[in-house]
Amino acid sequence: MYDLVIIGGGPAGLSASVYAKRAMLNTVVIEKQPINGGQVLNTYEVDNYLGIPDIDGFNLAKKFKEHAEKLGAEFLKGEVKEIIDKNDFKEVILKNDDKIDTKAVIVATGTFYRKLNIDGEKRLRGMGVSYCATCDGSFFRNKITAVVGGGDVALEDAVFLSRMCEKVYIIHRRDKFRGTKILREKVESIKNIEILYNTVTEEIKGENEVEGLLLKNVNTGKTFDISVNGVFIAIGTIPDTGFLKGLIELDDNGYVIAEEDGITSREGIFAAGDIRLKALRQIITAASDGANCVYSAEKYIEKI
Amino acid sequence: MYDLVIIGGGPAGLSASVYAKRAMLNTVVIEKQPINGGQVLNTYEVDNYLGIPDIDGFNLAKKFKEHAEKLGAEFLKGEVKEIIDKNDFKEVILKNDDKIDTKAVIVATGTFYRKLNIDGEKRLRGMGVSYCATCDGSFFRNKITAVVGGGDVALEDAVFLSRMCEKVYIIHRRDKFRGTKILREKVESIKNIEILYNTVTEEIKGENEVEGLLLKNVNTGKTFDISVNGVFIAIGTIPDTGFLKGLIELDDNGYVIAEEDGITSREGIFAAGDIRLKALRQIITAASDGANCVYSAEKYIEKI
Repeated sequence: MYDLVIIGGGPAGLSASVYAKRAMLNTVVIEKQPINGGQVLNTYEVDNYLGIPDIDGFNLAKKFKEHAEKLGAEFLKGEVKEIIDKNDFKEVILKNDDKIDTKAVIVATGTFYRKLNIDGEKRLRGMGVSYCATCDGSFFRNKITAVVGGGDVALEDAVFLSRMCEKVYIIHRRDKFRGTKILREKVESIKNIEILYNTVTEEIKGENEVEGLLLKNVNTGKTFDISVNGVFIAIGTIPDTGFLKGLIELDDNGYVIAEEDGITSREGIFAAGDIRLKALRQIITAASDGANCVYSAEKYIEKI
Repeated sequence: MYDLVIIGGGPAGLSASVYAKRAMLNTVVIEKQPINGGQVLNTYEVDNYLGIPDIDGFNLAKKFKEHAEKLGAEFLKGEVKEIIDKNDFKEVILKNDDKIDTKAVIVATGTFYRKLNIDGEKRLRGMGVSYCATCDGSFFRNKITAVVGGGDVALEDAVFLSRMCEKVYIIHRRDKFRGTKILREKVESIKNIEILYNTVTEEIKGENEVEGLLLKNVNTGKTFDISVNGVFIAIGTIPDTGFLKGLIELDDNGYVIAEEDGITSREGIFAAGDIRLKALRQIITAASDGANCVYSAEKYIEKI
């Protein structure tokens, strides 16, 4: 019987493991990816995690993991299928049907990529369709690419791609970006970025690899083609909370309803990081969530 | 006219300055101490700030400051006397009567040390009476010291002092410690630490330097003396929010009433870090607060 199972090895889960080790809780971190780090891994440059300026996501995730390992954190590769509340303890069931008993659970599974759900998207994934400029951008040196989206991630992706690609389109369905001012100004100032506002992507074209996009101007209704070698879809993320449905309260988008203490609608299950319904999803706020959840879990464990 | 004045240069204020610079807000950080870093400076060892394991407080504070400086943060040495709400802007008035106009304010002034208020405490401060083992512990090599308190800081202080002192007493008024399990077990395992439970300190004795303590067992009512060369008072901290009284809502202990978004009872004034009423006051939660406050301040500034 563990004191604590942490599901997810991103900043929230790893910060939780650091706090749990220092609280001497018998803890395991379950992570379904071969490398821990969550979405941080897919971030080209991180410059707002206080104390660690100007680092790439991969190396930041590595620092996080090393910190947890230095304190003796235990890791398990696996995917959680279900959590069963046995009242005085929880049974965490993995996809391979392994069962892990624990007094408390911190869920920190993060989010995954939202899809456009258009023709060609699924068929050409990995052949020019990508959800991660940081991961795949370098395959498109001196090529033409497009980024679909208008938030921070889309703008960051475009800036990143502009350094290696001949040209980068940003395709955004609205007449202005949602992204922060610094990024808006940056993409507008870069010469090989062309912004197509009020434009939606109707189809991704190509035989065995991406060759172009069928676009539509939402004001005029006119459709037109552009030639691209790659398309990066950055239209948001969805919380990885499917396995929690019916167990704890989620909002309409699947985010866990919990305050900063991480306490969910079910006693003994806590939520940390991007899966929690909150205003600002950042590495630093996820790491803070991890600490807060352990504090809440400690009090819960002492009580039962 | 600044967009944002940040009062306090600890983890909350510095994280806020990092986020503010990236949001391209015209910002200044006001700090009354000659060195930024807040209470972190007085922490011997920090091992729970994810990604930066096993560092002393001074060097962690230095990393934080360097990060803010790298992004071009502006700093001003001064102490804030008053904030006047001019509705569409705020006037920040310093002790030297300088006035700084700003659209929004983030208060991140942290906390200061709680006093015992007993005979000898004030008179012998700096002559054996200290509130910071990290700062002053090394003056007591091979001497006998006492730590007053029962929380994490008191226990951490005792562990730290046990490495250099001949003997360390922990004087705690209750029959068990409030501190975390790992620290409780640690102090109990160290041979040159002697724990006096159910004991209060009545007087600090000594002519020109601390020579002993007059103690009282709260169960028996009996008083007795112990010989010590130094006493470290670690009975908690008080939020540095005196200048906010009447301006924003504080609780009975002086903590600012605000949720994780940092929004206070007065529009345009936000609270970050240890001064905020919350469950867990840590470096990582303070840094997260700083990010959240800038996000709230950005939305406020766009609105006015």
